[in-house]
Amino acid sequence: MSKVRVAGFSVSLDGFSAGIEQSLDDPLGKRGTELFQWYFHTRSFCSMHGAEGGTTGDVDDVFAERAMANFGAFILGRNMFTAERGPWRDPSWKGWWGDNPPYHAPTFVLTHYPRAPLVMEGGTTFHFVTGGIAEALALARKAAAGKDVKIGGGAATVRQYLKAGLIDSLHLASVPVLLGQGELLFDGLDLHALGFHITERQGSDYATHLVLEKTLLEKT
Amino acid sequence: MSKVRVAGFSVSLDGFSAGIEQSLDDPLGKRGTELFQWYFHTRSFCSMHGAEGGTTGDVDDVFAERAMANFGAFILGRNMFTAERGPWRDPSWKGWWGDNPPYHAPTFVLTHYPRAPLVMEGGTTFHFVTGGIAEALALARKAAAGKDVKIGGGAATVRQYLKAGLIDSLHLASVPVLLGQGELLFDGLDLHALGFHITERQGSDYATHLVLEKTLLEKT
Repeated sequence: MSKVRVAGFSVSLDGFSAGIEQSLDDPLGKRGTELFQWYFHTRSFCSMHGAEGGTTGDVDDVFAERAMANFGAFILGRNMFTAERGPWRDPSWKGWWGDNPPYHAPTFVLTHYPRAPLVMEGGTTFHFVTGGIAEALALARKAAAGKDVKIGGGAATVRQYLKAGLIDSLHLASVPVLLGQGELLFDGLDLHALGFHITERQGSDYATHLVLEKTLLEKT
Repeated sequence: MSKVRVAGFSVSLDGFSAGIEQSLDDPLGKRGTELFQWYFHTRSFCSMHGAEGGTTGDVDDVFAERAMANFGAFILGRNMFTAERGPWRDPSWKGWWGDNPPYHAPTFVLTHYPRAPLVMEGGTTFHFVTGGIAEALALARKAAAGKDVKIGGGAATVRQYLKAGLIDSLHLASVPVLLGQGELLFDGLDLHALGFHITERQGSDYATHLVLEKTLLEKT
Protein backbone atom coordinates (compact mmCIF):
# COMPACT_ATOMS: atom_id res chain seq x y z
CA MET A 1 0.00 0.00 0.00
CA SER A 2 1.22 3.46 -0.81
CA LYS A 3 2.72 5.26 2.18
CA VAL A 4 3.62 8.80 3.03
CA ARG A 5 7.19 8.74 4.28
CA VAL A 6 9.94 10.96 5.58
CA ALA A 7 13.38 9.45 5.00
CA GLY A 8 17.03 10.37 5.26
CA PHE A 9 16.11 13.17 7.64
CA SER A 10 18.83 14.19 10.12
CA VAL A 11 18.29 15.46 13.62
CA SER A 12 21.04 16.70 15.92
CA LEU A 13 21.38 15.50 19.51
CA ASP A 14 19.78 18.77 20.57
CA GLY A 15 16.86 18.34 18.20
CA PHE A 16 17.68 20.48 15.16
CA SER A 17 17.19 19.45 11.52
CA ALA A 18 18.69 22.53 9.89
CA GLY A 19 20.84 25.45 10.89
CA ILE A 20 19.90 29.10 11.01
CA GLU A 21 20.28 31.66 8.23
CA GLN A 22 19.72 29.56 5.12
CA SER A 23 21.30 31.16 2.06
CA LEU A 24 22.55 30.25 -1.40
CA ASP A 25 25.85 29.31 0.21
CA ASP A 26 24.20 27.43 3.07
CA PRO A 27 21.16 25.54 1.72
CA LEU A 28 20.97 23.65 5.03
CA GLY A 29 21.58 26.73 7.17
CA LYS A 30 24.73 27.46 9.11
CA ARG A 31 26.62 24.29 10.07
CA GLY A 32 23.80 22.33 8.43
CA THR A 33 26.25 20.12 6.55
CA GLU A 34 27.38 18.69 9.91
CA LEU A 35 23.99 16.97 10.05
CA PHE A 36 24.72 14.93 6.92
CA GLN A 37 28.19 13.49 7.50
CA TRP A 38 26.53 10.05 7.54
CA TYR A 39 25.30 10.67 4.00
CA PHE A 40 28.10 12.36 2.06
CA HIS A 41 30.41 9.34 2.11
CA THR A 42 27.85 6.91 0.65
CA ARG A 43 27.69 5.71 -2.94
CA SER A 44 24.01 6.72 -2.95
CA PHE A 45 24.99 10.33 -2.40
CA CYS A 46 27.91 10.28 -4.82
CA SER A 47 25.96 8.68 -7.66
CA MET A 48 23.05 11.07 -7.12
CA HIS A 49 25.50 13.85 -7.95
CA GLY A 50 27.06 12.04 -10.85
CA ALA A 51 30.24 11.18 -8.99
CA GLU A 52 32.08 7.87 -8.77
CA GLY A 53 32.88 6.05 -5.56
CA GLY A 54 31.40 6.18 -2.10
CA THR A 55 30.85 3.44 0.46
CA THR A 56 28.43 0.65 -0.34
CA GLY A 57 26.46 -1.84 1.71
CA ASP A 58 27.27 -0.19 5.04
CA VAL A 59 24.48 0.93 7.35
CA ASP A 60 24.65 4.54 6.13
CA ASP A 61 24.51 3.58 2.46
CA VAL A 62 21.65 1.11 3.00
CA PHE A 63 19.57 3.82 4.66
CA ALA A 64 20.63 6.41 2.07
CA GLU A 65 19.44 4.13 -0.71
CA ARG A 66 16.14 3.38 1.04
CA ALA A 67 15.65 7.11 1.49
CA MET A 68 15.28 7.58 -2.28
CA ALA A 69 13.71 4.24 -3.28
CA ASN A 70 10.11 3.47 -4.26
CA PHE A 71 8.86 7.05 -4.32
CA GLY A 72 6.45 8.10 -7.06
CA ALA A 73 6.20 11.75 -5.99
CA PHE A 74 7.85 14.23 -3.65
CA ILE A 75 6.65 17.17 -1.58
CA LEU A 76 9.03 19.95 -0.55
CA GLY A 77 8.58 23.03 1.54
CA ARG A 78 9.40 26.14 -0.45
CA ASN A 79 12.64 26.69 1.46
CA MET A 80 13.86 23.29 0.28
CA PHE A 81 13.66 24.61 -3.26
CA THR A 82 15.13 28.07 -2.79
CA ALA A 83 16.66 30.49 -0.29
CA GLU A 84 14.45 33.23 -1.77
CA ARG A 85 11.48 34.39 0.32
CA GLY A 86 8.27 36.11 -0.75
CA PRO A 87 7.14 36.49 -4.40
CA TRP A 88 9.18 34.71 -7.08
CA ARG A 89 11.64 37.25 -8.41
CA ASP A 90 14.26 35.16 -10.18
CA PRO A 91 12.69 32.99 -12.91
CA SER A 92 16.10 31.52 -13.74
CA TRP A 93 16.26 29.75 -10.35
CA LYS A 94 15.33 26.10 -10.84
CA GLY A 95 16.35 24.63 -7.49
CA TRP A 96 19.70 23.69 -5.99
CA TRP A 97 20.21 20.63 -8.13
CA GLY A 98 21.06 21.75 -11.67
CA ASP A 99 19.25 20.61 -14.83
CA ASN A 100 18.70 17.02 -13.71
CA PRO A 101 17.44 17.00 -10.10
CA PRO A 102 17.63 13.77 -8.08
CA TYR A 103 13.85 13.31 -7.81
CA HIS A 104 13.04 11.88 -11.26
CA ALA A 105 9.33 12.19 -10.47
CA PRO A 106 6.66 14.85 -9.99
CA THR A 107 7.76 17.10 -7.13
CA PHE A 108 5.28 19.41 -5.43
CA VAL A 109 6.65 22.58 -3.85
CA LEU A 110 4.51 24.26 -1.17
CA THR A 111 4.37 28.00 -1.68
CA HIS A 112 2.10 30.99 -1.22
CA TYR A 113 3.07 32.33 -4.65
CA PRO A 114 1.85 30.79 -7.91
CA ARG A 115 4.41 29.78 -10.51
CA ALA A 116 4.17 27.74 -13.70
CA PRO A 117 5.47 24.15 -13.53
CA LEU A 118 9.13 23.57 -14.33
CA VAL A 119 9.90 20.55 -16.47
CA MET A 120 13.43 19.41 -15.75
CA GLU A 121 15.61 16.69 -17.26
CA GLY A 122 15.39 13.14 -15.96
CA GLY A 123 11.69 13.02 -15.13
CA THR A 124 11.48 15.70 -12.46
CA THR A 125 8.75 18.30 -12.84
CA PHE A 126 8.38 20.92 -10.15
CA HIS A 127 4.75 21.83 -9.49
CA PHE A 128 4.09 24.86 -7.30
CA VAL A 129 1.11 24.29 -5.01
CA THR A 130 -0.61 27.22 -3.31
CA GLY A 131 -3.56 25.31 -1.80
CA GLY A 132 -1.82 23.95 1.29
CA ILE A 133 -0.49 20.62 2.51
CA ALA A 134 -3.65 18.55 1.96
CA GLU A 135 -3.95 19.66 -1.66
CA ALA A 136 -0.27 18.96 -2.28
CA LEU A 137 -0.64 15.46 -0.81
CA ALA A 138 -3.73 14.71 -2.90
CA LEU A 139 -1.86 15.74 -6.05
CA ALA A 140 1.24 13.79 -5.02
CA ARG A 141 -0.72 10.62 -4.21
CA LYS A 142 -2.36 10.71 -7.60
CA ALA A 143 0.92 11.36 -9.37
CA ALA A 144 2.66 8.59 -7.42
CA ALA A 145 0.31 5.99 -8.91
CA GLY A 146 0.63 3.51 -6.08
CA LYS A 147 4.22 4.23 -5.11
CA ASP A 148 5.09 6.05 -1.88
CA VAL A 149 5.05 9.82 -1.44
CA LYS A 150 8.09 11.38 0.19
CA ILE A 151 7.80 14.47 2.36
CA GLY A 152 11.28 15.78 1.64
CA GLY A 153 11.30 18.54 4.25
CA GLY A 154 12.18 20.92 5.70
CA ALA A 155 11.43 20.59 9.37
CA ALA A 156 8.44 22.98 9.31
CA THR A 157 6.85 21.03 6.46
CA VAL A 158 7.41 17.69 8.20
CA ARG A 159 5.91 19.08 11.41
CA GLN A 160 2.81 20.30 9.57
CA TYR A 161 2.23 16.90 7.97
CA LEU A 162 2.86 15.10 11.25
CA LYS A 163 0.42 17.31 13.16
CA ALA A 164 -2.20 16.66 10.51
CA GLY A 165 -1.69 12.91 11.00
CA LEU A 166 -0.69 12.44 7.37
CA ILE A 167 2.68 10.70 7.75
CA ASP A 168 3.02 6.91 8.07
CA SER A 169 6.75 6.46 8.54
CA LEU A 170 9.92 8.43 9.28
CA HIS A 171 13.56 7.43 8.94
CA LEU A 172 15.65 9.74 11.09
CA ALA A 173 19.42 9.86 11.37
CA SER A 174 20.23 10.94 14.92
CA VAL A 175 23.65 12.57 14.63
CA PRO A 176 26.22 13.38 17.33
CA VAL A 177 26.16 17.10 16.71
CA LEU A 178 25.20 20.05 18.94
CA LEU A 179 23.76 22.60 16.58
CA GLY A 180 22.54 24.94 19.33
CA GLN A 181 20.23 26.90 17.05
CA GLY A 182 18.15 26.10 14.01
CA GLU A 183 14.97 24.36 12.97
CA LEU A 184 13.61 22.05 15.67
CA LEU A 185 11.97 18.90 14.36
CA PHE A 186 9.87 17.77 17.34
CA ASP A 187 8.90 21.16 18.74
CA GLY A 188 5.36 20.91 20.13
CA LEU A 189 4.85 17.43 18.68
CA ASP A 190 3.77 14.41 20.71
CA LEU A 191 4.84 11.54 18.45
CA HIS A 192 3.71 8.99 21.03
CA ALA A 193 0.19 10.40 21.07
CA LEU A 194 0.29 10.47 17.27
CA GLY A 195 0.77 6.69 17.39
CA PHE A 196 4.42 6.38 16.42
CA HIS A 197 6.76 3.68 17.70
CA ILE A 198 10.41 3.08 16.96
CA THR A 199 10.48 -0.05 14.86
CA GLU A 200 14.12 -0.18 13.76
CA ARG A 201 17.45 1.11 15.06
CA GLN A 202 20.96 0.69 13.64
CA GLY A 203 24.12 2.57 14.48
CA SER A 204 27.03 3.57 12.26
CA ASP A 205 30.16 5.58 12.93
CA TYR A 206 28.26 8.70 11.90
CA ALA A 207 24.67 8.33 13.07
CA THR A 208 22.07 6.21 14.77
CA HIS A 209 19.40 5.41 12.20
CA LEU A 210 15.88 5.03 13.55
CA VAL A 211 12.63 4.18 11.82
CA LEU A 212 9.42 5.49 13.37
CA GLU A 213 6.14 3.99 12.23
CA LYS A 214 2.52 4.17 13.10
CA THR A 215 1.91 0.69 14.36
CA LEU A 216 -0.99 -1.15 15.87
CA LEU A 217 0.81 -1.87 19.14
CA GLU A 218 -1.40 -1.46 22.17
CA LYS A 219 -1.18 2.07 23.51
CA THR A 220 0.64 2.49 26.82
CA MET B 1 41.06 19.01 38.68
CA SER B 2 37.66 18.77 40.25
CA LYS B 3 34.83 18.90 37.70
CA VAL B 4 31.13 19.48 37.81
CA ARG B 5 29.54 16.63 35.90
CA VAL B 6 26.21 15.28 34.81
CA ALA B 7 26.34 11.53 34.17
CA GLY B 8 24.03 8.64 33.48
CA PHE B 9 21.39 11.07 32.28
CA SER B 10 18.91 9.72 29.75
CA VAL B 11 17.23 11.66 26.99
CA SER B 12 14.59 10.29 24.66
CA LEU B 13 14.78 10.70 20.87
CA ASP B 14 12.25 13.52 21.22
CA GLY B 15 14.27 15.26 23.92
CA PHE B 16 12.67 14.29 27.21
CA SER B 17 14.54 13.29 30.38
CA ALA B 18 11.52 12.43 32.53
CA GLY B 19 7.85 11.74 32.04
CA ILE B 20 4.91 13.80 33.23
CA GLU B 21 3.05 13.43 36.54
CA GLN B 22 5.81 12.32 38.88
CA SER B 23 4.39 10.46 41.90
CA LEU B 24 5.43 8.01 44.59
CA ASP B 25 4.66 5.21 42.14
CA ASP B 26 6.40 6.97 39.22
CA PRO B 27 9.56 8.68 40.53
CA LEU B 28 10.63 9.27 36.91
CA GLY B 29 7.19 10.35 35.76
CA LYS B 30 4.89 8.35 33.52
CA ARG B 31 6.81 5.94 31.27
CA GLY B 32 10.01 7.36 32.78
CA THR B 33 11.43 3.87 33.33
CA GLU B 34 11.55 3.43 29.54
CA LEU B 35 14.40 5.95 29.58
CA PHE B 36 16.60 3.71 31.72
CA GLN B 37 16.42 0.30 30.03
CA TRP B 38 20.14 0.69 29.29
CA TYR B 39 20.80 0.92 33.03
CA PHE B 40 18.59 -1.63 34.77
CA HIS B 41 20.39 -4.67 33.33
CA THR B 42 23.87 -3.59 34.47
CA ARG B 43 25.76 -4.92 37.46
CA SER B 44 26.30 -1.31 38.55
CA PHE B 45 22.56 -0.86 38.93
CA CYS B 46 21.96 -4.23 40.56
CA SER B 47 24.74 -3.87 43.12
CA MET B 48 23.63 -0.33 43.93
CA HIS B 49 20.36 -1.87 45.05
CA GLY B 50 21.99 -4.75 46.90
CA ALA B 51 21.12 -7.32 44.24
CA GLU B 52 23.34 -9.96 42.64
CA GLY B 53 24.00 -10.26 38.92
CA GLY B 54 23.71 -7.83 36.06
CA THR B 55 25.83 -7.45 32.95
CA THR B 56 29.47 -6.43 33.35
CA GLY B 57 32.03 -4.81 31.09
CA ASP B 58 29.56 -4.00 28.33
CA VAL B 59 29.16 -0.44 27.11
CA ASP B 60 26.11 0.19 29.30
CA ASP B 61 27.80 -1.10 32.45
CA VAL B 62 31.00 0.82 31.79
CA PHE B 63 29.05 4.07 31.49
CA ALA B 64 26.84 3.16 34.47
CA GLU B 65 29.93 2.66 36.60
CA ARG B 66 31.54 5.90 35.43
CA ALA B 67 28.27 7.67 36.25
CA MET B 68 28.80 7.02 39.96
CA ALA B 69 32.61 7.05 40.20
CA ASN B 70 34.91 9.75 41.60
CA PHE B 71 32.20 11.97 43.03
CA GLY B 72 32.76 13.64 46.38
CA ALA B 73 29.38 15.36 46.58
CA PHE B 74 26.01 15.39 44.81
CA ILE B 75 23.42 18.04 44.04
CA LEU B 76 19.78 17.10 43.45
CA GLY B 77 16.74 19.14 42.56
CA ARG B 78 14.06 18.78 45.17
CA ASN B 79 11.90 16.62 42.89
CA MET B 80 14.72 14.10 42.68
CA PHE B 81 14.34 13.63 46.42
CA THR B 82 10.56 13.55 46.74
CA ALA B 83 7.27 13.71 44.86
CA GLU B 84 5.99 16.12 47.52
CA ARG B 85 5.66 19.78 46.53
CA GLY B 86 5.58 22.88 48.75
CA PRO B 87 6.47 22.90 52.47
CA TRP B 88 7.83 19.69 53.98
CA ARG B 89 4.87 17.87 55.50
CA ASP B 90 6.09 14.31 55.93
CA PRO B 91 9.22 14.19 58.14
CA SER B 92 9.38 10.41 57.77
CA TRP B 93 10.21 10.77 54.04
CA LYS B 94 13.93 10.28 53.58
CA GLY B 95 14.15 9.92 49.81
CA TRP B 96 13.39 7.05 47.42
CA TRP B 97 16.38 4.96 48.37
CA GLY B 98 15.80 3.49 51.86
CA ASP B 99 18.18 3.81 54.81
CA ASN B 100 21.37 3.49 52.75
CA PRO B 101 21.15 5.72 49.66
CA PRO B 102 23.55 5.12 46.76
CA TYR B 103 25.38 8.46 47.15
CA HIS B 104 27.70 7.67 50.09
CA ALA B 105 28.69 11.34 50.22
CA PRO B 106 27.25 14.72 51.14
CA THR B 107 24.21 15.33 48.94
CA PHE B 108 22.74 18.80 48.58
CA VAL B 109 19.03 19.09 47.83
CA LEU B 110 17.80 22.35 46.26
CA THR B 111 14.59 23.52 47.93
CA HIS B 112 12.70 26.65 48.86
CA TYR B 113 11.83 25.17 52.27
CA PRO B 114 14.40 24.77 55.07
CA ARG B 115 14.83 21.36 56.64
CA ALA B 116 17.41 19.93 59.04
CA PRO B 117 20.09 17.68 57.51
CA LEU B 118 19.35 13.96 57.33
CA VAL B 119 22.22 11.67 58.22
CA MET B 120 21.72 8.34 56.48
CA GLU B 121 23.63 5.06 56.59
CA GLY B 122 26.66 4.53 54.36
CA GLY B 123 28.01 8.05 54.32
CA THR B 124 25.12 9.92 52.69
CA THR B 125 23.93 13.08 54.42
CA PHE B 126 21.15 15.07 52.78
CA HIS B 127 21.61 18.83 53.21
CA PHE B 128 18.71 21.04 52.24
CA VAL B 129 19.90 24.25 50.55
CA THR B 130 17.60 27.24 50.20
CA GLY B 131 20.12 29.73 48.85
CA GLY B 132 20.03 28.67 45.19
CA ILE B 133 22.25 26.79 42.76
CA ALA B 134 25.45 28.79 43.29
CA GLU B 135 25.32 28.32 47.06
CA ALA B 136 24.64 24.60 46.66
CA LEU B 137 27.62 24.28 44.30
CA ALA B 138 29.93 26.17 46.66
CA LEU B 139 28.92 23.85 49.51
CA ALA B 140 29.27 20.77 47.32
CA ARG B 141 32.70 21.76 45.99
CA LYS B 142 33.97 22.23 49.51
CA ALA B 143 32.46 18.95 50.68
CA ALA B 144 33.86 17.09 47.66
CA ALA B 145 37.42 17.93 48.74
CA GLY B 146 38.95 17.70 45.28
CA LYS B 147 36.70 15.01 43.86
CA ASP B 148 34.06 15.79 41.23
CA VAL B 149 30.61 17.17 41.99
CA LYS B 150 27.68 15.44 40.32
CA ILE B 151 24.56 17.34 39.31
CA GLY B 152 22.18 14.40 39.69
CA GLY B 153 19.14 16.04 38.09
CA GLY B 154 16.37 16.47 37.26
CA ALA B 155 16.21 18.17 33.93
CA ALA B 156 15.23 21.58 35.31
CA THR B 157 18.19 21.54 37.70
CA VAL B 158 20.61 20.50 34.94
CA ARG B 159 19.28 23.26 32.70
CA GLN B 160 19.78 25.86 35.43
CA TYR B 161 23.39 24.82 36.00
CA LEU B 162 24.06 24.68 32.25
CA LYS B 163 22.64 28.16 31.66
CA ALA B 164 24.80 29.48 34.48
CA GLY B 165 27.87 27.99 32.77
CA LEU B 166 28.65 25.82 35.78
CA ILE B 167 28.81 22.36 34.20
CA ASP B 168 32.02 20.95 32.67
CA SER B 169 30.87 17.59 31.33
CA LEU B 170 27.72 15.60 30.59
CA HIS B 171 27.28 11.93 29.86
CA LEU B 172 23.93 11.45 28.14
CA ALA B 173 22.29 8.19 27.15
CA SER B 174 20.27 8.87 24.00
CA VAL B 175 17.53 6.24 24.05
CA PRO B 176 15.24 5.02 21.26
CA VAL B 177 12.05 6.08 22.99
CA LEU B 178 9.34 8.56 22.00
CA LEU B 179 8.07 9.95 25.27
CA GLY B 180 5.89 12.63 23.68
CA GLN B 181 5.50 14.62 26.89
CA GLY B 182 7.66 15.32 29.92
CA GLU B 183 10.70 17.29 30.98
CA LEU B 184 12.73 18.60 28.06
CA LEU B 185 16.47 18.66 28.65
CA PHE B 186 17.69 21.08 25.96
CA ASP B 187 14.73 23.47 25.91
CA GLY B 188 16.04 26.99 25.28
CA LEU B 189 19.67 25.90 25.65
CA ASP B 190 22.39 26.50 23.07
CA LEU B 191 25.02 23.94 24.07
CA HIS B 192 27.21 24.94 21.11
CA ALA B 193 27.31 28.56 22.26
CA LEU B 194 27.99 27.31 25.80
CA GLY B 195 31.17 25.72 24.43
CA PHE B 196 30.23 22.05 24.47
CA HIS B 197 31.46 19.48 21.98
CA ILE B 198 30.72 15.79 21.73
CA THR B 199 33.96 14.09 22.70
CA GLU B 200 32.88 10.45 22.94
CA ARG B 201 30.15 8.26 21.43
CA GLN B 202 29.45 4.56 21.90
CA GLY B 203 26.35 2.58 21.06
CA SER B 204 24.79 -0.38 22.82
CA ASP B 205 21.61 -2.36 22.16
CA TYR B 206 19.77 0.03 24.47
CA ALA B 207 21.27 3.49 24.00
CA THR B 208 23.83 5.68 22.32
CA HIS B 209 26.13 7.02 25.00
CA LEU B 210 27.56 10.48 24.37
CA VAL B 211 29.95 12.59 26.39
CA LEU B 212 29.70 16.37 26.01
CA GLU B 213 32.55 18.47 27.29
CA LYS B 214 33.65 22.05 27.28
CA THR B 215 36.75 21.87 25.15
CA LEU B 216 39.21 24.32 23.75
CA LEU B 217 38.48 23.43 20.13
CA GLU B 218 38.33 26.43 17.84
CA LYS B 219 34.81 27.79 17.61
CA THR B 220 33.05 27.34 14.28
